Amino acid sequence: MNKRFGLPPGFRLGIIGGGQLARMSAYEAFRLGIHTGAVCSTSGKDPMEQVTPVIFRGDVSDYDTLMKLAEWADVITLENEFLDGEVLERVQRDSGKPVYPSPKSFKLIESKRLEKETFRDAGIPVADFVVVESVAALQKTGARLGWPFILKSSKGGYDGYGNAVVSNQAEAEAAFRKFGGESGREVIAEEMVDFTKELAVMVARNAHGMVSYPCCETIQHHHICAKVLAPAPISRSLRDECVSLAEKAIQAIDGIGLFGFEFFLTKDNELLLNESAPRPHNSGHFSMEACSVSQFETHVRAVCGLPLAKPVMRYPAAVMINLLGKFNGPAELTLPDSESAHEEVHLHVYGKAESRLGRKMGHITVLGNNLENTLVTADRIEQATIL
Amino acid sequence: MNKRFGLPPGFRLGIIGGGQLARMSAYEAFRLGIHTGAVCSTSGKDPMEQVTPVIFRGDVSDYDTLMKLAEWADVITLENEFLDGEVLERVQRDSGKPVYPSPKSFKLIESKRLEKETFRDAGIPVADFVVVESVAALQKTGARLGWPFILKSSKGGYDGYGNAVVSNQAEAEAAFRKFGGESGREVIAEEMVDFTKELAVMVARNAHGMVSYPCCETIQHHHICAKVLAPAPISRSLRDECVSLAEKAIQAIDGIGLFGFEFFLTKDNELLLNESAPRPHNSGHFSMEACSVSQFETHVRAVCGLPLAKPVMRYPAAVMINLLGKFNGPAELTLPDSESAHEEVHLHVYGKAESRLGRKMGHITVLGNNLENTLVTADRIEQATIL
Repeated sequence: MNKRFGLPPGFRLGIIGGGQLARMSAYEAFRLGIHTGAVCSTSGKDPMEQVTPVIFRGDVSDYDTLMKLAEWADVITLENEFLDGEVLERVQRDSGKPVYPSPKSFKLIESKRLEKETFRDAGIPVADFVVVESVAALQKTGARLGWPFILKSSKGGYDGYGNAVVSNQAEAEAAFRKFGGESGREVIAEEMVDFTKELAVMVARNAHGMVSYPCCETIQHHHICAKVLAPAPISRSLRDECVSLAEKAIQAIDGIGLFGFEFFLTKDNELLLNESAPRPHNSGHFSMEACSVSQFETHVRAVCGLPLAKPVMRYPAAVMINLLGKFNGPAELTLPDSESAHEEVHLHVYGKAESRLGRKMGHITVLGNNLENTLVTADRIEQATIL
Repeated sequence: MNKRFGLPPGFRLGIIGGGQLARMSAYEAFRLGIHTGAVCSTSGKDPMEQVTPVIFRGDVSDYDTLMKLAEWADVITLENEFLDGEVLERVQRDSGKPVYPSPKSFKLIESKRLEKETFRDAGIPVADFVVVESVAALQKTGARLGWPFILKSSKGGYDGYGNAVVSNQAEAEAAFRKFGGESGREVIAEEMVDFTKELAVMVARNAHGMVSYPCCETIQHHHICAKVLAPAPISRSLRDECVSLAEKAIQAIDGIGLFGFEFFLTKDNELLLNESAPRPHNSGHFSMEACSVSQFETHVRAVCGLPLAKPVMRYPAAVMINLLGKFNGPAELTLPDSESAHEEVHLHVYGKAESRLGRKMGHITVLGNNLENTLVTADRIEQATIL
């Protein structure tokens, strides 16, 4: 209690991006008295539009737009990784405003190749992979990784876009061309991992220290996060190991801010780091109510240089289910009358004007005493909620 | 789970007032995907200014300003009671947009006289009082209520302003004149209640039902709420009785929305309803983290016609301490490094540009396993936090 920290009056946080992650970070910034501005698309329909008067419209990788944000803000952060590390670096240098996570960290994980090399070099297990230089190299790749393997666009892929499982030379060639491999875009090939679960850990770090969230299980449908179970229903020692690897990973990139790390748990109980995200993450939404401090408050604290609080689970079990669009059209919300008599049920709606089949429109989090019952309640409520 | 309720796309909540209560309600509206607009003062410095692009500047009792809000909003609510019930009624009628709490309910508690008459007529115990018509009546008032007694401006008093304890005829005459009694402003006289504690209960009600928050103790310094202890350290049966009286009170005014009810606990363990507030209340801030659903979410749900969830305490004890301005000048925040190793500590800063001695700048809530320890931690953190 000796050292003290603070914020000057009217401290301003600039967020590159105007989606739901920016919006949920903004709620927590507001709660700490921090002003928030954001770079939003020109559509005028981004979730951030409704929650702050300070909007800079343009592309998230456009230097001039980012400079306008930087001129306004005291510190800058981001809500997605589809940015240009070089542009971030120029904006930080030319504006003199700090960007967290730093462009230096960002560049170490900017492409899937760099990300995997960075973590592998730090001694963190990752799935075997090679860079594919040409169509001609695909046969050799298959021989090394075994068929089928996965081809990935090194940059810009998300939620399954830019990924393809290929079983033979013809499929591999088609995917390689689709991902622009012949036009010089980087494509990597990765071994198929026979995993039993996918896990995730959120970690935050700044000059005050490092804090981690409980290891959770993420369940994907069609490559999109559908559900998250916290804590992950695996042994405590495996969860601890997963958290340790995530902490090793954030240190490997000297990360300042909040990062999400996704892991495969193989059938041999081996953990492989799969992906990282330099921002709040869908797998951490459960923390908003399940933990003593939400990932969004921790994000804001980490990038604004405030002390971090250790997140503790308030309940033995939490289940987060994404509310994915159930129709195409204006986003009308229908919810059940009686949510749950026994568990805590929390609804989050992102304020998107239009619903589309499968679009992330919101999420629900249910807190309870055991995962099994909590999951039953969560499923029931998700089914009764239309958005 | 048979009945279903919902919100049309882009549902808009208009709040009359731009202070911290509006701001904290807005956070919860945003989380439910509800757009929020507010009537703010012309200063441009209200806490709401930073959290929504939809601001209508003007006086909260100005018909034209409220009509602009009503034109934009789907439903209207308020954040303080210093409004004109007649104007609210005209706005509701002329705009066709519902106002909750309704002008009808509002008018039953619009002045201290009406409020006390309404609750007394409903069989809810209140302190003895009389309307003072003239200076000449003061002596008779003293004879009935006993000296000293309290003189109150019937309208517009808050945090001790508009209240005076008077011990003799000279003091009584001075206060009566100060409150405008001679110019026709209504002044009431109230007996001094020998209370041991002040208690408060938040209750919400709409077509879906009624829910209540735990009875808490409020501790005032210089007539301003300083601390809140939840649950109130009194017997369970007294807490239950207090909740019952609050529920009787909201029904007595057919209240739709969220109401705060303040009580005196006399040394004979008698409960007297002291004041009501048709809005979120300082005594309910602890609910933001201490309960399964915060008073602000319940406020939004109640006025937007959504189902209400029963608030349950997550921890055995919660202490809320207001962060009252410790200096005059730009609102720089200084906070301790390590907040607490054992309890949950939550910081709220209202985004006011200027600090002033004693001004409500924010609050902290500490959650723990017993009130005594939690209070020690909360006091320590409040002392180390400067705002």
